[in-house]
Amino acid sequence: MVTPTDESARSSVAPLPTAVAVIATGVIGRSWLRVFSRAGIPVRAWDPDPARLAQAVAWHADAVAAEETEPGRIADAVARITAAPSLAAALADVDYVQESGPESLEAKRAIYVELARLAPRRAILASSTSALDMTAIAAGLESAERCIVAHPVNPPHVVPVVEVLGGAETSEAVVARTMAWLRAVGQVPVRLNHYVPGFLLNRMQAALVREAVDLVARGVASADDVDAVIRDGLGLRWAFLGPYGTADTNADAGARDYFARYGSSYQALWADLRTDVQFDQALLDRIEAETEPMTRGRTAAERRAWRDRAVTALRALKADLSRPPGAP
Amino acid sequence: MVTPTDESARSSVAPLPTAVAVIATGVIGRSWLRVFSRAGIPVRAWDPDPARLAQAVAWHADAVAAEETEPGRIADAVARITAAPSLAAALADVDYVQESGPESLEAKRAIYVELARLAPRRAILASSTSALDMTAIAAGLESAERCIVAHPVNPPHVVPVVEVLGGAETSEAVVARTMAWLRAVGQVPVRLNHYVPGFLLNRMQAALVREAVDLVARGVASADDVDAVIRDGLGLRWAFLGPYGTADTNADAGARDYFARYGSSYQALWADLRTDVQFDQALLDRIEAETEPMTRGRTAAERRAWRDRAVTALRALKADLSRPPGAP
Repeated sequence: MVTPTDESARSSVAPLPTAVAVIATGVIGRSWLRVFSRAGIPVRAWDPDPARLAQAVAWHADAVAAEETEPGRIADAVARITAAPSLAAALADVDYVQESGPESLEAKRAIYVELARLAPRRAILASSTSALDMTAIAAGLESAERCIVAHPVNPPHVVPVVEVLGGAETSEAVVARTMAWLRAVGQVPVRLNHYVPGFLLNRMQAALVREAVDLVARGVASADDVDAVIRDGLGLRWAFLGPYGTADTNADAGARDYFARYGSSYQALWADLRTDVQFDQALLDRIEAETEPMTRGRTAAERRAWRDRAVTALRALKADLSRPPGAP
Repeated sequence: MVTPTDESARSSVAPLPTAVAVIATGVIGRSWLRVFSRAGIPVRAWDPDPARLAQAVAWHADAVAAEETEPGRIADAVARITAAPSLAAALADVDYVQESGPESLEAKRAIYVELARLAPRRAILASSTSALDMTAIAAGLESAERCIVAHPVNPPHVVPVVEVLGGAETSEAVVARTMAWLRAVGQVPVRLNHYVPGFLLNRMQAALVREAVDLVARGVASADDVDAVIRDGLGLRWAFLGPYGTADTNADAGARDYFARYGSSYQALWADLRTDVQFDQALLDRIEAETEPMTRGRTAAERRAWRDRAVTALRALKADLSRPPGAP
């Protein structure tokens, strides 16, 4: 929801950061390189492992070449990435830092002490963490007001949503600027008002996965048939409309009307969903037997590459279609 | 999973029914007209309300014209639909009946007595019911072995998945033939091995909706931001891969590896999801306030038409892409 306060915060923000640092360049970090290079922003990349840093820079060049055809544009995008010789060098002149290091509170607290010490006072310090609370990461830091979670989906250069969430001391201006900049580089930032485990995405995914697993565990249907219900059913709508947008199209007077009509049916069904689903050896064996044909002899990398090409084509289709009723 | 038994059952089946009856022609029934006319099958349509029958036939002609450009093909498709003067006339010479009448057990039992009496002995009697158990609908019918649930998504001429489920007395040959015929007309049938409330689709949708509603009820995020996580995040994958296919691409050694690694994380998150979500006036008011902008001044019919065009374009895109690892 856009309020006047949001708008005024947004309008005072520079359209894009002048330079960004991408700190830790594993699978998530390297993909952030492409998000920023695509938006035309100079990027300083750094990783404690020089080999991983070099791999990420090479991966970025391949990703650009897969996406662009014009040699000048390829050269420009590749030139935007600098492999920094040190953390201090990476941070020296940036407005925004995207940190994607190991998912432990100790590691995050340690790197945040360094980010706060070495980055310019103006720089936003954003973390890709999928699970940790910025209140805990930034506890005791003088710079806590500029520390924020910006959790992407893997890989962010393909799937645009980013979950944005401050800690207890994060300033409203930092939240607004992070949202505005992520939107400006082509991502879809969503805002959490307070911390919950799993944020929004992993909670909703977990809710659906629990039932998908239980349906197979109970022998109601095969894993492939459960999947078909999503990929040839619900997922065809969810590519365009979330659950509220879907509800909005399913009752003549909109989402309120839908839930007023069907709320009691939902509550009855909710009462029937099992919550105590457990992964045991027999269930894992069944999942293996029923999903093995999905690999079709392709490597994991090939399957992921197929998925990312499909999602990229879908995003191009969505850009072509008129905007959905529920889209920003 | 295809077993030798399934294959032999399938190979003994005629490639398509020679004629079908569509009984009750509301929003679901009229869409079934288009599923069968698109597949080149003569359709006898009947509804107890002659005005609704006439409306459905007119709707079908519009749907054909929206989809086809060649006048001869339009005329052929329109000519495949006959508005039958009576239930007996609709059923006289068909191999397959798709019933989409009111969702009450009493109404279904009453119509099934008539279907069993008037349709040829060879005809499969399929119901579009989204909630009822065929064991109860067909209880006491001599023809119970040929009675089956074939529950589509609304509208079936746009969204292909169909949930197929026999009752206690339904024969295996009838299940196999229903699956084969639905596949042959371009739908994606999935098989339930036994009845559960909500079948597969509504259970998984309910699981996700419960968490989506709770996140808004608790003030974690706005309805539009919850939706963005689906339409610009999870839904982009789910358009191509169900939860097992997604798991398969998220761990190097496939879905078993994924759940063996992350099963305990899922279990921890599952324990944190609330199950006692209630729709009260305050929640419905909040949903209305946060979803009202989604309508953007469009009528419900316009919003549904947009959604169906988008899904149709996505299906065309999917047909163009190489088949996903998890697809049939």
